[in-house]
Amino acid sequence: MSTGYFGDITNIPFEGPDSTNPLAFRFYDPDEIVMGKRLEDHMRFAVAYWHSFAWPGGDPFGGQTFERPWFPADSMELAKLKADVAFEMFTALGVPYYCFHDADVRPEGANFAENTRNLNEIVDYFAEKQAATGIKLLWGTANLFSHRRYMAGAATNPNPDVFAFGAATVKTCMDATMKLGGENYVLWGGREGYETLLNTDMKREDQQLGRFLNMVVEYKHKIGYKGTILIEPKPQEPTKHQYDYDVATVYGFLKRHGLENEVKVNIEQGHAILAGHSFEHELHLANALGIFGSIDMNRNDYQSGWDTDHFPNNVPEMTLAYYEILKGGGFSTGGTNFDAKLRRQSLDPQDLLIAHIGGMDCCARGLKAAAKMLEDGVITSFIDDRYKGWSEDSAKLMLDGKVSLEEIEARVLADDLNPEPVSGRQEYLENVVNRYV
Amino acid sequence: MSTGYFGDITNIPFEGPDSTNPLAFRFYDPDEIVMGKRLEDHMRFAVAYWHSFAWPGGDPFGGQTFERPWFPADSMELAKLKADVAFEMFTALGVPYYCFHDADVRPEGANFAENTRNLNEIVDYFAEKQAATGIKLLWGTANLFSHRRYMAGAATNPNPDVFAFGAATVKTCMDATMKLGGENYVLWGGREGYETLLNTDMKREDQQLGRFLNMVVEYKHKIGYKGTILIEPKPQEPTKHQYDYDVATVYGFLKRHGLENEVKVNIEQGHAILAGHSFEHELHLANALGIFGSIDMNRNDYQSGWDTDHFPNNVPEMTLAYYEILKGGGFSTGGTNFDAKLRRQSLDPQDLLIAHIGGMDCCARGLKAAAKMLEDGVITSFIDDRYKGWSEDSAKLMLDGKVSLEEIEARVLADDLNPEPVSGRQEYLENVVNRYV
Amino acid sequence: MSTGYFGDITNIPFEGPDSTNPLAFRFYDPDEIVMGKRLEDHMRFAVAYWHSFAWPGGDPFGGQTFERPWFPADSMELAKLKADVAFEMFTALGVPYYCFHDADVRPEGANFAENTRNLNEIVDYFAEKQAATGIKLLWGTANLFSHRRYMAGAATNPNPDVFAFGAATVKTCMDATMKLGGENYVLWGGREGYETLLNTDMKREDQQLGRFLNMVVEYKHKIGYKGTILIEPKPQEPTKHQYDYDVATVYGFLKRHGLENEVKVNIEQGHAILAGHSFEHELHLANALGIFGSIDMNRNDYQSGWDTDHFPNNVPEMTLAYYEILKGGGFSTGGTNFDAKLRRQSLDPQDLLIAHIGGMDCCARGLKAAAKMLEDGVITSFIDDRYKGWSEDSAKLMLDGKVSLEEIEARVLADDLNPEPVSGRQEYLENVVNRYV
Amino acid sequence: MSTGYFGDITNIPFEGPDSTNPLAFRFYDPDEIVMGKRLEDHMRFAVAYWHSFAWPGGDPFGGQTFERPWFPADSMELAKLKADVAFEMFTALGVPYYCFHDADVRPEGANFAENTRNLNEIVDYFAEKQAATGIKLLWGTANLFSHRRYMAGAATNPNPDVFAFGAATVKTCMDATMKLGGENYVLWGGREGYETLLNTDMKREDQQLGRFLNMVVEYKHKIGYKGTILIEPKPQEPTKHQYDYDVATVYGFLKRHGLENEVKVNIEQGHAILAGHSFEHELHLANALGIFGSIDMNRNDYQSGWDTDHFPNNVPEMTLAYYEILKGGGFSTGGTNFDAKLRRQSLDPQDLLIAHIGGMDCCARGLKAAAKMLEDGVITSFIDDRYKGWSEDSAKLMLDGKVSLEEIEARVLADDLNPEPVSGRQEYLENVVNRYV
Repeated sequence: MSTGYFGDITNIPFEGPDSTNPLAFRFYDPDEIVMGKRLEDHMRFAVAYWHSFAWPGGDPFGGQTFERPWFPADSMELAKLKADVAFEMFTALGVPYYCFHDADVRPEGANFAENTRNLNEIVDYFAEKQAATGIKLLWGTANLFSHRRYMAGAATNPNPDVFAFGAATVKTCMDATMKLGGENYVLWGGREGYETLLNTDMKREDQQLGRFLNMVVEYKHKIGYKGTILIEPKPQEPTKHQYDYDVATVYGFLKRHGLENEVKVNIEQGHAILAGHSFEHELHLANALGIFGSIDMNRNDYQSGWDTDHFPNNVPEMTLAYYEILKGGGFSTGGTNFDAKLRRQSLDPQDLLIAHIGGMDCCARGLKAAAKMLEDGVITSFIDDRYKGWSEDSAKLMLDGKVSLEEIEARVLADDLNPEPVSGRQEYLENVVNRYV
Repeated sequence: MSTGYFGDITNIPFEGPDSTNPLAFRFYDPDEIVMGKRLEDHMRFAVAYWHSFAWPGGDPFGGQTFERPWFPADSMELAKLKADVAFEMFTALGVPYYCFHDADVRPEGANFAENTRNLNEIVDYFAEKQAATGIKLLWGTANLFSHRRYMAGAATNPNPDVFAFGAATVKTCMDATMKLGGENYVLWGGREGYETLLNTDMKREDQQLGRFLNMVVEYKHKIGYKGTILIEPKPQEPTKHQYDYDVATVYGFLKRHGLENEVKVNIEQGHAILAGHSFEHELHLANALGIFGSIDMNRNDYQSGWDTDHFPNNVPEMTLAYYEILKGGGFSTGGTNFDAKLRRQSLDPQDLLIAHIGGMDCCARGLKAAAKMLEDGVITSFIDDRYKGWSEDSAKLMLDGKVSLEEIEARVLADDLNPEPVSGRQEYLENVVNRYV
Repeated sequence: MSTGYFGDITNIPFEGPDSTNPLAFRFYDPDEIVMGKRLEDHMRFAVAYWHSFAWPGGDPFGGQTFERPWFPADSMELAKLKADVAFEMFTALGVPYYCFHDADVRPEGANFAENTRNLNEIVDYFAEKQAATGIKLLWGTANLFSHRRYMAGAATNPNPDVFAFGAATVKTCMDATMKLGGENYVLWGGREGYETLLNTDMKREDQQLGRFLNMVVEYKHKIGYKGTILIEPKPQEPTKHQYDYDVATVYGFLKRHGLENEVKVNIEQGHAILAGHSFEHELHLANALGIFGSIDMNRNDYQSGWDTDHFPNNVPEMTLAYYEILKGGGFSTGGTNFDAKLRRQSLDPQDLLIAHIGGMDCCARGLKAAAKMLEDGVITSFIDDRYKGWSEDSAKLMLDGKVSLEEIEARVLADDLNPEPVSGRQEYLENVVNRYV
Repeated sequence: MSTGYFGDITNIPFEGPDSTNPLAFRFYDPDEIVMGKRLEDHMRFAVAYWHSFAWPGGDPFGGQTFERPWFPADSMELAKLKADVAFEMFTALGVPYYCFHDADVRPEGANFAENTRNLNEIVDYFAEKQAATGIKLLWGTANLFSHRRYMAGAATNPNPDVFAFGAATVKTCMDATMKLGGENYVLWGGREGYETLLNTDMKREDQQLGRFLNMVVEYKHKIGYKGTILIEPKPQEPTKHQYDYDVATVYGFLKRHGLENEVKVNIEQGHAILAGHSFEHELHLANALGIFGSIDMNRNDYQSGWDTDHFPNNVPEMTLAYYEILKGGGFSTGGTNFDAKLRRQSLDPQDLLIAHIGGMDCCARGLKAAAKMLEDGVITSFIDDRYKGWSEDSAKLMLDGKVSLEEIEARVLADDLNPEPVSGRQEYLENVVNRYV
């Protein structure tokens, strides 16, 4: 029985590029075959529970704008109503996945035991819904940043009791994720960072964070959880500096704590931008370092200095993003999660649907363009050709560590090497991309 | 015999805080004892040859403004005149050190052999001057970014001949540095990065860069060079993305290539700011990671998005910087290099002196304030106290990996742990700092 | 009878620079005479009611951290308790002024009539407290951005009923301000801007905003209010683009609507930084344009892209700010308002006091340094000298519009004018500033 | 007779969207009719002489990379060879317009008289070429920022002789522009700004700049020049702060000096971004203020903080830009100038062609999408509907200044107005845009 929240809308059809129906897909046909695989299996779309169902529409200068029948969701009954509406939306959109934090789905309890009871009750309710709808959990996670106990961090808190409370909470969320068949478990260190160096010892906090993550990995193996552990980089906000700054920083952290083969990254476009990077940079780098996991597909406004979490809408940007993803082999356990917020003025239930439809269409269009780029191979051939000198013997010797600086100097002198630069052809390559988008 | 470039100014005296003489120090008395050490030995000031003696005052929208008698310095004679003036300035300022790139000091030759000959001739000239004045070399480095052959990088160039040319050049510069007793050898990867991902393979370029740096370290050991190898992080400019983005990124790179115990970082305030960090953050982090080496003491304008290389002039900022440096034990082989440019409107010879005087005074004042902060210990005690819970047994067990998530959960439940947050006291600590500056 | 919120602290004494008492002033002695005037009369300090007494410590990623006995302040009784504590703090700090929005001080009512009744009741309460303590109102203002009715703006709302509701609210706040003897009335257009141009007509919204402000000015004259009307520029946040972007933009708006002689600006350091300007730039410009009014003395973190509203703590920055203010003649009806937030981890009542003490000391120190700079006149003389060529006859003719391009060309040819540049001496001037701070 | 610089390429044909020929247009067919007008007449494309023919490929960290046969262009013969190649490129691309600074086209002379002679000789040469090819001048301008005499500004220089030299130079450039039938005359105040407030009097410099611009307008009328005078806003770079910061700032300046009906703006995407605005914002605002003139169609890299002057390549961005332009009635005397630089690694002659082809195609595609959006009217209707309340009588009275705050308050009370917000539908509108791109 429907809650009726979305009126009589129960299904968003694919109608093709010429459709002007705002409640239809124009590019996302889940069954379309792209590079030999169904589009649904490429995209692996997920809806984020928090922004879509738990966020009231506030910002630092104003309060709640959304009036959802399940707000304030401080009882199990309201939490279940919220879940009902959420699964109605997942079903209507045809997304195969969703994601959640514990705090999004259960009423906040007075203590750890009550939190856990509440979570478990909702997990059972989700399990039923998953069985009924076929919708799956892309990832679960613990909210270790909203409650005031975490104001100075969870794993990196100066108070070990907060570390303990956070650790215990992560355990319950890993249990929940495993029970629901979640394909990944994510850690976003929202307050793992600092507000001022004047009260902070980064070396000590790094040790705490490294231990925390190692415990997570140890527990994963102990319980036989087969999903992927993911860290989500973000450079700042809410803290002045977050320890999981960007992909390169997370890599160094993992390597330092011996975790580079155990943990991967969940990369968000908006966080990449806040860190001063393009999204494709972070994706390319994660693939180069072997730690690419999953994506949060929400952009920042380029003119705003905080996390705006817009739905994606620029197809050329999506194309470059999925190009990096496909070049790296596509998603394994990861997927395309919309960690995206409606604008706080988008009050209507339909706005929730429309925002996701637009985002999914934009991503699908981007991936299809990227697949064509890869299949045509113009750019990959160009790159292979550009570095082809490195396949010569004298070059391989240098790269393989078989020659020293002195030997290289001798060769430069003997051959009077004086290399001439060649065009990098950036504009040509940018034009090539525009053939596909 | 003086060149007369600075008129009759041959010595900048220390006159104390009340002096209004623009050609005197107010805070930098090299012989003042601070924390048991001469101030000169704390600061280890160095002048950067390039900005002060080679830069013509151009920017992307206009050409040369400075009219130096040694410009264009394309002959050995002019190169030596430049050196004469440089050592006159070092002497007048009383700085113990200077730093140079090969391209700053020698005329550009037609090929590698001529470059090397030119460099060696100047190195001999420098050696005489060092002997005559007692001035020493803080570090040498190779300019692998200005010549058009390096437009697509040196170590990361797609053409292995450019790699070879760069490698051979680094060898000559390491030889020069060792000959001159340079205490460090620096690598700034000015064009080790990319302009567009469309023509770039980051994984491949990372391998090239890792090999390049390993060759440098191998050569260092082979020749018995005792100085420190330093990498200078910068996030971007001239390239869209530089591989040595910031301290955290460089750490990951070093760790990936097994170099974390061989190479340290030379941190510049301006580059920290471009990367979205405070200077003290980069210093604190480098100390936490054990890779702190040296500093380039020049700031960026907070409202400009490119490298402005201003001389330092904000004492509270300097205080926080030297506080991190002193807390980490101070400089070993590193020092305080002014990689700072005059503004291009500062045309007069005296402007060169005045800019350095102001910078040195500002740094000296900052270090003295930082030393007092450390000696008083108000902030260090606060931090120790803040984390003191971690010295309790239950906390140590967690940090030492002796307990699992499940055991922690059991304890949280058993003790009904529900930690209350305590004030972080940021404003109090900021006020404490203001007692010293 | 005290509320006891601050324990037994009822007075913050001036103890001089050597004091290490965190609850004493080191530089702010209200009775010190600077440039012939009491320091209190220069600074004209005010506390902002909202951040200090109404803000719960939330941010976009977490909720309330502060536990104030008057929260949630949804009754008149709690509102009065809040007022009691506020005036105890004003008294202890010895600030002569405070500032408030209607929504800070009264419980939110169900409609306009109830809001007005609540406001008026509190205004009466404030009037008694002002009489009892001698504390005055620097400015009043209306909060036209927090309630969801204003989510798309107040004056610039597409719905004229929202415009009307906002206009009526401003009237009640102007009445309140006048009744309490407030010396200024401020308008901050928190949501006067847009989220997306796709649903916006800026020309139309400009007309609405111009009319709104003209009504405010007309009402001021009608009721004989003698205070100053102030606009507070901010470039963005909460909206993507705020119409009162910066001082230059506000000037253009005022001029367009014939208000440049009626309205001045309240400039905030943090907003200046968000707009890409230094604080001293905005102050200098406002003086140049004749629209300088007052300041909000709270900084942004240079590495954060949102409004962090830190208390000021960098004395050299304060010096440059007060230098511009004093050069322009100092405050008239304006003052130094701390529109500054405690960090959300600063939980203790004492943190409120300490933050203000530090800010006041830092400002006082800056103003005193600036006064000395002005009295010494080194910089003003330099500037006069730099432009002195403009006092020659041929220059005056050009500036006064007495000669045409052709006549100038003729003179350039006849005299073969070929001017040589002279040093701008920026580093010298920066060193001069460092003599005072 | 061809110079042969572009080999045998003399014409870039239109081949339609499916072409993969890098030397053909896919979207720009000059004769296509869009909204009743030829596409060429909509776009009014122009090539910028400076970046394409005078820029050597240097940046702050490296020198010349381009090897053009006409470099260093310090003789009239080389200047004419440069012109020959330029007109060959204009012809091949089929652009109707070009733009130049005096310093781009003539050798630098020893004084004003020689500069003028050199300019005039080239102007005659251009006149012949224009007659021969049918190519026209979109705008001329004077370079008042590259020569060291202008290092502290031209109109705003503290030395009135520099003002005079600049004014005389502008006269010669206006004469040249008029002689060549240029449709606009542009002023970009590259160094009209400051490096430090410590040596600057903004009020005085504003008066100088206002007078300068008034002289330009007076001269225009005197000589009967019918083109448009345009100012090009930019917030900073090369100076710390440029006086023509953005459209809003320029408007205020024009209004202050009585020029708002005489001067319009030439808006550059890259400069908009540097100022913290979207390009469409600046266009929308210029139309709202009645000062829209022309565009420089080159973007900045969103992750770089300096002017990168990339060729445009993001079609959705172009669509939003041309949507604002078409909504305002399209270009009058203005046009689409590519003030865009090749990347400095793009060494080949063909790169020049390919970059312009890509830019022109991208713009053409954007304009055609924008035209369709306008013709369909979905968004304009939405906006009309959103503000429709303002056409009611009570609303008109407010907007027309017929009611006071008191009367509005009375109505709010009487009607118990309590407006409910409605959805802003941002995501819906963003999806609508994606139907067209």
